[in-house]
Amino acid sequence: MILRLDRIATALPPPSEPDPEGARAVQELLGGKFGEMSTLMNYTMQSFNFRNRSVARPFYDLVANIAAEEFGHIELVAMTINNMLTGASPTDDGKAPLASLAEVKGVGQPAHFLQGGQGALLQDSRGLPWTGDNVFASGDLVEDLTHNFFLETGARNNKLKVYEMCEHPAARALTGYLLVRGGVHQVAYARAIENLTGADLTKLFPSPRIPTDKIPECQPHIKKNEHRILYRMSPFDYNELPAVFNGMHPETGEPLEVIDGPPEGAPVAEMPAQPAVFAPDYAPEEIAEIASKLRAKAGIEATPEEMPAVKSGLVNRAKGVAGKVTP
Amino acid sequence: MILRLDRIATALPPPSEPDPEGARAVQELLGGKFGEMSTLMNYTMQSFNFRNRSVARPFYDLVANIAAEEFGHIELVAMTINNMLTGASPTDDGKAPLASLAEVKGVGQPAHFLQGGQGALLQDSRGLPWTGDNVFASGDLVEDLTHNFFLETGARNNKLKVYEMCEHPAARALTGYLLVRGGVHQVAYARAIENLTGADLTKLFPSPRIPTDKIPECQPHIKKNEHRILYRMSPFDYNELPAVFNGMHPETGEPLEVIDGPPEGAPVAEMPAQPAVFAPDYAPEEIAEIASKLRAKAGIEATPEEMPAVKSGLVNRAKGVAGKVTP
Amino acid sequence: MILRLDRIATALPPPSEPDPEGARAVQELLGGKFGEMSTLMNYTMQSFNFRNRSVARPFYDLVANIAAEEFGHIELVAMTINNMLTGASPTDDGKAPLASLAEVKGVGQPAHFLQGGQGALLQDSRGLPWTGDNVFASGDLVEDLTHNFFLETGARNNKLKVYEMCEHPAARALTGYLLVRGGVHQVAYARAIENLTGADLTKLFPSPRIPTDKIPECQPHIKKNEHRILYRMSPFDYNELPAVFNGMHPETGEPLEVIDGPPEGAPVAEMPAQPAVFAPDYAPEEIAEIASKLRAKAGIEATPEEMPAVKSGLVNRAKGVAGKVTP
Amino acid sequence: MILRLDRIATALPPPSEPDPEGARAVQELLGGKFGEMSTLMNYTMQSFNFRNRSVARPFYDLVANIAAEEFGHIELVAMTINNMLTGASPTDDGKAPLASLAEVKGVGQPAHFLQGGQGALLQDSRGLPWTGDNVFASGDLVEDLTHNFFLETGARNNKLKVYEMCEHPAARALTGYLLVRGGVHQVAYARAIENLTGADLTKLFPSPRIPTDKIPECQPHIKKNEHRILYRMSPFDYNELPAVFNGMHPETGEPLEVIDGPPEGAPVAEMPAQPAVFAPDYAPEEIAEIASKLRAKAGIEATPEEMPAVKSGLVNRAKGVAGKVTP
Amino acid sequence: MILRLDRIATALPPPSEPDPEGARAVQELLGGKFGEMSTLMNYTMQSFNFRNRSVARPFYDLVANIAAEEFGHIELVAMTINNMLTGASPTDDGKAPLASLAEVKGVGQPAHFLQGGQGALLQDSRGLPWTGDNVFASGDLVEDLTHNFFLETGARNNKLKVYEMCEHPAARALTGYLLVRGGVHQVAYARAIENLTGADLTKLFPSPRIPTDKIPECQPHIKKNEHRILYRMSPFDYNELPAVFNGMHPETGEPLEVIDGPPEGAPVAEMPAQPAVFAPDYAPEEIAEIASKLRAKAGIEATPEEMPAVKSGLVNRAKGVAGKVTP
Amino acid sequence: MILRLDRIATALPPPSEPDPEGARAVQELLGGKFGEMSTLMNYTMQSFNFRNRSVARPFYDLVANIAAEEFGHIELVAMTINNMLTGASPTDDGKAPLASLAEVKGVGQPAHFLQGGQGALLQDSRGLPWTGDNVFASGDLVEDLTHNFFLETGARNNKLKVYEMCEHPAARALTGYLLVRGGVHQVAYARAIENLTGADLTKLFPSPRIPTDKIPECQPHIKKNEHRILYRMSPFDYNELPAVFNGMHPETGEPLEVIDGPPEGAPVAEMPAQPAVFAPDYAPEEIAEIASKLRAKAGIEATPEEMPAVKSGLVNRAKGVAGKVTP
Repeated sequence: MILRLDRIATALPPPSEPDPEGARAVQELLGGKFGEMSTLMNYTMQSFNFRNRSVARPFYDLVANIAAEEFGHIELVAMTINNMLTGASPTDDGKAPLASLAEVKGVGQPAHFLQGGQGALLQDSRGLPWTGDNVFASGDLVEDLTHNFFLETGARNNKLKVYEMCEHPAARALTGYLLVRGGVHQVAYARAIENLTGADLTKLFPSPRIPTDKIPECQPHIKKNEHRILYRMSPFDYNELPAVFNGMHPETGEPLEVIDGPPEGAPVAEMPAQPAVFAPDYAPEEIAEIASKLRAKAGIEATPEEMPAVKSGLVNRAKGVAGKVTP
Repeated sequence: MILRLDRIATALPPPSEPDPEGARAVQELLGGKFGEMSTLMNYTMQSFNFRNRSVARPFYDLVANIAAEEFGHIELVAMTINNMLTGASPTDDGKAPLASLAEVKGVGQPAHFLQGGQGALLQDSRGLPWTGDNVFASGDLVEDLTHNFFLETGARNNKLKVYEMCEHPAARALTGYLLVRGGVHQVAYARAIENLTGADLTKLFPSPRIPTDKIPECQPHIKKNEHRILYRMSPFDYNELPAVFNGMHPETGEPLEVIDGPPEGAPVAEMPAQPAVFAPDYAPEEIAEIASKLRAKAGIEATPEEMPAVKSGLVNRAKGVAGKVTP
Repeated sequence: MILRLDRIATALPPPSEPDPEGARAVQELLGGKFGEMSTLMNYTMQSFNFRNRSVARPFYDLVANIAAEEFGHIELVAMTINNMLTGASPTDDGKAPLASLAEVKGVGQPAHFLQGGQGALLQDSRGLPWTGDNVFASGDLVEDLTHNFFLETGARNNKLKVYEMCEHPAARALTGYLLVRGGVHQVAYARAIENLTGADLTKLFPSPRIPTDKIPECQPHIKKNEHRILYRMSPFDYNELPAVFNGMHPETGEPLEVIDGPPEGAPVAEMPAQPAVFAPDYAPEEIAEIASKLRAKAGIEATPEEMPAVKSGLVNRAKGVAGKVTP
Repeated sequence: MILRLDRIATALPPPSEPDPEGARAVQELLGGKFGEMSTLMNYTMQSFNFRNRSVARPFYDLVANIAAEEFGHIELVAMTINNMLTGASPTDDGKAPLASLAEVKGVGQPAHFLQGGQGALLQDSRGLPWTGDNVFASGDLVEDLTHNFFLETGARNNKLKVYEMCEHPAARALTGYLLVRGGVHQVAYARAIENLTGADLTKLFPSPRIPTDKIPECQPHIKKNEHRILYRMSPFDYNELPAVFNGMHPETGEPLEVIDGPPEGAPVAEMPAQPAVFAPDYAPEEIAEIASKLRAKAGIEATPEEMPAVKSGLVNRAKGVAGKVTP
Repeated sequence: MILRLDRIATALPPPSEPDPEGARAVQELLGGKFGEMSTLMNYTMQSFNFRNRSVARPFYDLVANIAAEEFGHIELVAMTINNMLTGASPTDDGKAPLASLAEVKGVGQPAHFLQGGQGALLQDSRGLPWTGDNVFASGDLVEDLTHNFFLETGARNNKLKVYEMCEHPAARALTGYLLVRGGVHQVAYARAIENLTGADLTKLFPSPRIPTDKIPECQPHIKKNEHRILYRMSPFDYNELPAVFNGMHPETGEPLEVIDGPPEGAPVAEMPAQPAVFAPDYAPEEIAEIASKLRAKAGIEATPEEMPAVKSGLVNRAKGVAGKVTP
Repeated sequence: MILRLDRIATALPPPSEPDPEGARAVQELLGGKFGEMSTLMNYTMQSFNFRNRSVARPFYDLVANIAAEEFGHIELVAMTINNMLTGASPTDDGKAPLASLAEVKGVGQPAHFLQGGQGALLQDSRGLPWTGDNVFASGDLVEDLTHNFFLETGARNNKLKVYEMCEHPAARALTGYLLVRGGVHQVAYARAIENLTGADLTKLFPSPRIPTDKIPECQPHIKKNEHRILYRMSPFDYNELPAVFNGMHPETGEPLEVIDGPPEGAPVAEMPAQPAVFAPDYAPEEIAEIASKLRAKAGIEATPEEMPAVKSGLVNRAKGVAGKVTP
């Protein structure tokens, strides 16, 4: 089971110039063979199918726990796509007989507007849907770990190329973050293989050769040590991570470290309505009024939209709880 | 973001007689168009793509929160499949030149043994992979809710038919539980539509006509009121659920209720190794020994495998924390 | 546009022993690459996309008119599958907690029961959905006709093999009919190529070598000359068929002939309810009662179920009307 | 079975400025999940698989009859795409070594030119083929009707967005018509659900909120009452439609009405040849000459191309026949 | 089994102006339904599955031998795509934080840059992967030959349209060559059908009507008689080709001829590195240095890159060997 | 380009008891994600797309050369499937009205009989077609090699499981051979990574843990050193293999070695006709007679069917030629 937090893993800039072509490219990081949906579901299915987990718990914990972080990554990619699409049609009505989508005819992925509501779709940059056949869960621990190391390698390749293709601030913030975090997962699986078999993969790093030290959008995360930290994404479980995630970072030589609890993250950004594509339908004010009445009837105060400090305080408390857990 | 708990939503019986044909059928509930992967990813993507969420928060909270419970459902279906496949090949070695898989030649889904490691695959009962095109996220709140109501209706249909086809105890425990919980989600989306538009869908219930009151495996869950309860699957968020999930159950007339925190659930059952399919490879004892050394090196005590009481105590504490949250 | 007749192209025997394995095989004739859905949609799309049709009208008429007959063929295949599945679960209730589908676990195509309601699915014998990529509509008349000749050739191959695999009376009635009618279409496209280019394809017949004269289920249709007749499936249009469909049958040497109007056909057979799979849901009596009240309210007499004579009289009148049409 | 009419459901303007990007978008209405191919095949398959139809005939008639109208809709969408592609390559030869397709390199859907002959393809706006997995035919009447109501809702969403994206006169004529007719089908399924279960869906309308009254291209059809009329698309059958399609239109309060016979429609427009893509191959004059000789040999007068009055007279006679039918 | 030669079937011009839109179009000739991957795998699978080949050897030899030539065609198409993509990103580094792919955002097939390394992908012009369902291998010799004739017809259609769309010198060199060679295969299958059944397909030529005599890029190959020659692509086998590939060319009246050995071909062109997409990763100099050390250690002299004369001498010797073979 | 040899890589036993269920399983080794079609096309596409190959030639040679051997592997798997299907329908006619396929109704993969002619299909054990999306060709040499190492690892897993499932002599001969040869390729890619990066993967072997020393069907090949030999599959090229394929075998400690020329192999076995499925159509005697006349007309002696000694002499001569090549 999971608990969900209404926060995203890192802050994204507010919507700016819409970039539907860029959004099409970023879809590769969501629904591509090496996108976040693939990392999420590979590790998730491997954790479900893990046999004899009691004797292999440090490895089980690693796979199951990284799966949990990946959920935050599909969220982040989806948010980035929404961000890049925002404003591509008018935000003040624009329904037919207006030709509000005429300007995006032949631009980017038409399905963003026709199938979706100017929102992320579970497909790759070609428009092909993500498929369950992207999952490898052989049950063989060495094979699964080898696969995961390779998957993260391919994923880093994709992230850098999306970075190079998309100058949109949201795409850059996204890829800067994912390059750092994906790097940790690549290292984690390499260490797991090393700890299990004795093979030394250190010399395979960096693979591919990504100059994270020269990429401005990676720096804030590197400064926070997020290139060498593994978050324990559970209030109570996956306590054996340090048995596998340990030793030195193969690129920097710094120590690898497990931190209790999720990243502090950032509030989920509000995306404005796009009425020309019915997102959401009804005038926003109507929905607001209905929601308001429903809240009142249920005796609920509206959730304040912007309280990063309080929110993050709550998250810290959650971390505290998790940190104190002893069996 | 999510936090993950190393517990499943409800207890499954231990592996008994293997049933690969049944396991093939249960795949429909994992990777079918109306399977749990579809409910998970539909609500997840809708929550990511929700525009103007501040004004429509009760509806956002509903969709986002049900998404979180669905993760526990794909987990449960996968576990059931693993359970039904356990023992279909020898659990004590059985590698070539033995013909350890000869007995399952032509039985059930060959991919369970050839592509997977006697484990769940992200595909339906035909062997077709789940696809991102199963997701509908139009951004139009009324349409999305209408879709979700229909999706849950189709899902209930599938669950009953799998119940009728599979007498395996794990399949029965699974479908008994899912029929009850899926019913809640169907009601939840109907109530959301009613609260938003004023349309009264009460007379559509039950759809399809499922005699849950006559199904023995549903009774324990009904007794615990799980047919009228919505779990708030977050330590801090989704507090506006009661604004939408309220009123009476259309079938029983009992009040609908929101409960803070996840179901108590059950520990994740240990599945024995299946060495003939390399799951996991290495002799289990070797892995155990390696893991043991790694733990020792990291100064970690082994996680005790069976501590339901303690575990559930922890979960209760988590609920407590969540229950006390005020903005 | 089309008008629809509530009759099928030829009579099928009433449901007898259920045969789910056979039904899986017959799916190849519905959703396979060479199934009736492919013939229907190839000719339909070619007719839609036909350029310069005024100058090439005899060829346009041929393609457009055969498309219309193919609709009756997908109908017939679907009806056959339903026929073969009927009774595979109890026809008197059988809902959970009964294990009404236990006997078909691992039998045939599980999707017939899990995804469908013991009914035909738009997929092939493997369970793969029919796809629009099965359509070839190049716009090049010679190429399209060459394709169609090849398509009918492959389709005949498939029909004979399904005949050999399935001894179920409905499957035999179906394939006996389709072998005869598909043969006409194969001849029609060969004649069209010959009339357009001068190439003589006569010596390619029969391809494949099918002994229609030895197949009992073909004889009634051959006796009615249905192996050398093309039905003009329109009350007013496609009058230039005889300009292309003419000459001698390449196998029998008999004259090819165009007949105004559709085959007399047979009434659509009533299939009994299969309540274990919710087909249809509600008890039949309840639906009957509701329908009865709705009819009464609308002042409509119930349609008598079995009036083949009258029906066929009506069809004859339709033929009459069509036969008298002059521009 | 069906009879085919060589007329389309409504007139389209003659080809004007080619618009390949627009044609790519319109493909969504042909081969998209919510396109006309989906409505056609969903209702067609549901009608084939209908069990116990005698007791539920009013509902059977509704589904079977709307299926028939949908054939006219895939035809109309295909014609629109052909219309929008016409002239994108030279209409006077243009074969290699000319670079006649250089101007459409990188424009719209390349498959329109490479796979097709500047004609419609059975795929969506992404280029993905329509698939049989888009069909839902559960056999459960309530579920199927719920699905159909949802499908029409999603289809209306898509139509309006294509309207907003494509200013091409053919696309506008198409969507103006389909918005009106699709609205009738949405109402029809809502009324069927209401008549069957008693649930009142009136307040769900309009869903999505489409301002048909403000869309100029809808007005001619609204004036002809086509927003509240159901055509009985059969010369003899589906006479129980009024038992289900009755009451008031949920948006306008006007009475719903069943009309015998198809829409008057319009002649199928002639599309000029596109020789650069071999559509059709041979010089048109050559084909004309061959056809002419074939006609002469068969003693057939050429079908006059443009006789809308006569044609529509014929259609009226057909309606007359159908209107007089009594069992 | 095969032996591989490090030569391509015909020379391509060196990379010039990059043309990603053109490269997307050329993909149709690699991974499209009528692309070279389809011809390769259709004939290959037919040759594997050939039953009773001893009695039908001339036909077996034809299919198996043409399969071998098709390998050289997928190679050539892939090389052309690489050629057209070369230089679309900087060839001197260009890694992030540079925006080296910004100029190709929204240009052509994004997957060329994101999924591949500016290289060919096994997909069609839409980005859909080639699929094994494109293979037809019925085992029926007449049907398979009919299919192959049709496949080559469709393939020629596609080649001409790609010619018309792409003015890039590499695309023109490719299509000029393939039009000539594909024409031979089309003739070969027509002759096989004629020799087997007696049907005369001569009048179907040319289909489609391609003016090869007017296409400058076809002339060098026609001058070398490559429009009427079949290469025997084996040092020892497929000696019965002349029993089927004989008679006159249906378009030119010249004699058809079998030549021992492969085309002389051309050296494989070196494509420069594209470091922005990690192709290949490491600086080229580093790889060069490593390779150099490895060669030295193994006592191997570097293979000289450009020795067309010597190379072709070797090929001639190979032909000589093959020509002298007697059983 | 390639030259083709009419020999298979290793001898298979003659057809014995038909085993359609086993044949379905063996399909995984042909069209599965880790089947031979995947290894063939991954290495083939990587070799086509190799940039800067002159400086990295030892690595290019390795990938290009292994690709060539893989062609022999898809051939061998296809032959095995044909072998296992032979005799499943009568070999002496059996056409309708006989029910010659009734015994295989519901047995194995129905498409083997309905879509194919009792022959191999390009699909996996589920019946899903092989897809071009199984190819990974990033252009990054380290990534591609890492992928290939992983691909071979997964392929070995699949091969052993097919061995365990299928006791049919042909399946056993196949998997015994492929386990040995696939092991060489796995080692080759590991060595390439080691030689390129310095990372030592030795301790990853064996992965998965396959007891080749205990598998009888592996022994003949091991005795011939085929577990440590790389064949140079070219008469003239890929001479730099020893620069990469060198050092010791990680499992046995024996030296790795490059051999000039292909394996000696075995003649292609004749498969008897299966007339019930039209494979090939016409009575075999008819075809024999036609072929005989065609040969006579062309002045060709029939190729003797069984001359392994002579044949292998020819192959040795080819090796001789290749061995003498100097630039």
